[in-house]
Amino acid sequence: MKTLAILGSTGSIGLNTLDLVRRFPGRYRVAGLAAGENLEQLLAQVQEFRPRLVSVKSAALAERLEAGLRSQGMETEICWGAEGLVRVATMAGVEMVISAVVGAVGLQPTYEALLAGRQVALANKESMVMAGRLLNETARRHGGCILPLDSEHSAIWQSLPGERREFLARLTLTASGGPFFRCSREELAAVPPAAAVKHPRWSMGPKISIDSATMMNKALEIIEARWLFQVPPVKITALIHPQSIVHSLVEFCDGAVLAHLARPDMRLPIAYALAYPERLPLPFPVLDLAREGKLEFFAVDPERFPALELAYRAMEIGDSGTVALNAANEVAVARFVAGEIGFLDITALVAEVLEQVPRRDFTSIAAVMDFDRQVRAMMAAGPAADRG
Amino acid sequence: MKTLAILGSTGSIGLNTLDLVRRFPGRYRVAGLAAGENLEQLLAQVQEFRPRLVSVKSAALAERLEAGLRSQGMETEICWGAEGLVRVATMAGVEMVISAVVGAVGLQPTYEALLAGRQVALANKESMVMAGRLLNETARRHGGCILPLDSEHSAIWQSLPGERREFLARLTLTASGGPFFRCSREELAAVPPAAAVKHPRWSMGPKISIDSATMMNKALEIIEARWLFQVPPVKITALIHPQSIVHSLVEFCDGAVLAHLARPDMRLPIAYALAYPERLPLPFPVLDLAREGKLEFFAVDPERFPALELAYRAMEIGDSGTVALNAANEVAVARFVAGEIGFLDITALVAEVLEQVPRRDFTSIAAVMDFDRQVRAMMAAGPAADRG
Repeated sequence: MKTLAILGSTGSIGLNTLDLVRRFPGRYRVAGLAAGENLEQLLAQVQEFRPRLVSVKSAALAERLEAGLRSQGMETEICWGAEGLVRVATMAGVEMVISAVVGAVGLQPTYEALLAGRQVALANKESMVMAGRLLNETARRHGGCILPLDSEHSAIWQSLPGERREFLARLTLTASGGPFFRCSREELAAVPPAAAVKHPRWSMGPKISIDSATMMNKALEIIEARWLFQVPPVKITALIHPQSIVHSLVEFCDGAVLAHLARPDMRLPIAYALAYPERLPLPFPVLDLAREGKLEFFAVDPERFPALELAYRAMEIGDSGTVALNAANEVAVARFVAGEIGFLDITALVAEVLEQVPRRDFTSIAAVMDFDRQVRAMMAAGPAADRG
Repeated sequence: MKTLAILGSTGSIGLNTLDLVRRFPGRYRVAGLAAGENLEQLLAQVQEFRPRLVSVKSAALAERLEAGLRSQGMETEICWGAEGLVRVATMAGVEMVISAVVGAVGLQPTYEALLAGRQVALANKESMVMAGRLLNETARRHGGCILPLDSEHSAIWQSLPGERREFLARLTLTASGGPFFRCSREELAAVPPAAAVKHPRWSMGPKISIDSATMMNKALEIIEARWLFQVPPVKITALIHPQSIVHSLVEFCDGAVLAHLARPDMRLPIAYALAYPERLPLPFPVLDLAREGKLEFFAVDPERFPALELAYRAMEIGDSGTVALNAANEVAVARFVAGEIGFLDITALVAEVLEQVPRRDFTSIAAVMDFDRQVRAMMAAGPAADRG
């Protein structure tokens, strides 16, 4: 019986994790849940999975949750806010923490879980992009580990178990290409926000849909891969694959390539992390390549999709570069959604910010968060803001 | 320095193996070579690689080889025939035997090499099809092992290193489909021998080209995979993939699939076996999926290509079934090449033979070879022969 704490239990990763816990009774126990504002769903989860500790976003929500739980006769302990997240992330008796809250708020609890020596199954991209070096060091020093939940990174992980790193030549992450991968630069310049939030393959929130359309999502994943697999940036690349069946390609020094294929279903990578080093017998439909017919691959055009190039530039700068890339992109996407800048201005703005970033590596999460705030402040004040 | 003996040194596998030995000086030493009738090439190989022992097909060829070697001042020991093959296969001081002679003649030396506790890198399909059970037992008892050289089987092997067999759900071998995979049954019935020996992707001998056209080649490979990976027949399947880039697909119980991709080049699987568990840094062009553009997959139609079905029927019968399948196919292909029977009659004839085969497993190579002869005799005498 593996004991879990789930950060982000009412989000997509959280729901899929709980779906697996439900399907394999006796294998997993849920000790802690942390959610944001979706009280109704959280209440149902507490009733079903009986965790010891639950956290919500605010004190007010915690009060309402308490009322709900007590009316059902449940004694579950309740906490809230950033501190609540950390409490759930570091609960005693937990073996694996599912870190799946969205955004920079996920960094601190991820770090604390590793500091406590936990296995962390990580869906929170920002953690590795902002502080991959620090998180790796923390895991190494305190006996924890970081297991990927992203389908691309899980795919790479699954392609490496028996292989020695010295024979690795290249990691390739596939990208669906987003809705615009056949558009010209002129067409891209005119893309309205409403078109960019519609993803052809996955139903996702607006931020990640726009990141997918600019391919900044893949840029962030390249940075994540660099730390998860401790591979130099020059050995990581991306390839457009509209069918989203092949999730990654791992090339070895002899020219052999191991590709990981699966139907797009987040439960597969989650199940792999939950069961590792075993595999769960999942009852979902299997991949039928004869029915799929064909798999297509296209190179990424750096003229139209400069985001990947920005990832390499950011990694070349150092920790400050990747923190700045992430922060600048968040600000730029918000401005695009607000109609203040055009689609191509998102990556242009990130490029401008990277021009001004000092080269620094960070030795604490506080320094990372501090620099993140500096970048956002600089963007609010600086000339880049005039574009709006 | 790994010491090799190569059976079939002037064939395609032998030449590619020696190309790799040449490219990695100091890593491999060639102690023995066995070839058939290509004296000129063999002489050049002996001059270059300086083996201690060389074998040729006949006493007459051995005499001519001796004259050639002595005129060059070389003292290499020479042997010949079936006994010569076995001598090279069991030479003292050899770590790995490359078993790459063509046909049933490869079985005895492969068996003897395993009996002597050698690693056997196996390209001789007939060995596993005729006596997979026995060869596995021999390897296990005497501390040897069997490493696949076929691109499909090497691909599966490379997809399994860190995986536990209990989580394996299915092995899929890909097939190019041969020249006729889009033909109707009517068109297949009228295929002349000259068309069947032209393969769209590989340049091969007439027997294997026809086996590829009937898909009997894939049927033999399914039987081979069953023994190499000790997986029940029901978990092995085939898929048509005309581009021959994906060599195999390994599916796990959670729905994940690991595919092995590589440019079609026999040196890759050979290098993997030579270097295992390491990988050689091969200087050949790498796979460029963006340039390939697309990979296509088609189910095998059992009406037009009944060979796969015959493989399962043969395995269901037992050792006698797979020996009979192989022998009947050889006889049928020869009759097709001679213009005595039509293209669809090849598999029909094999099916007829399987109808009459007793269920038997064999405990010696002699029994296997004896039954092989019985099947051929039965075909020469029986009603099936009247088709000619």
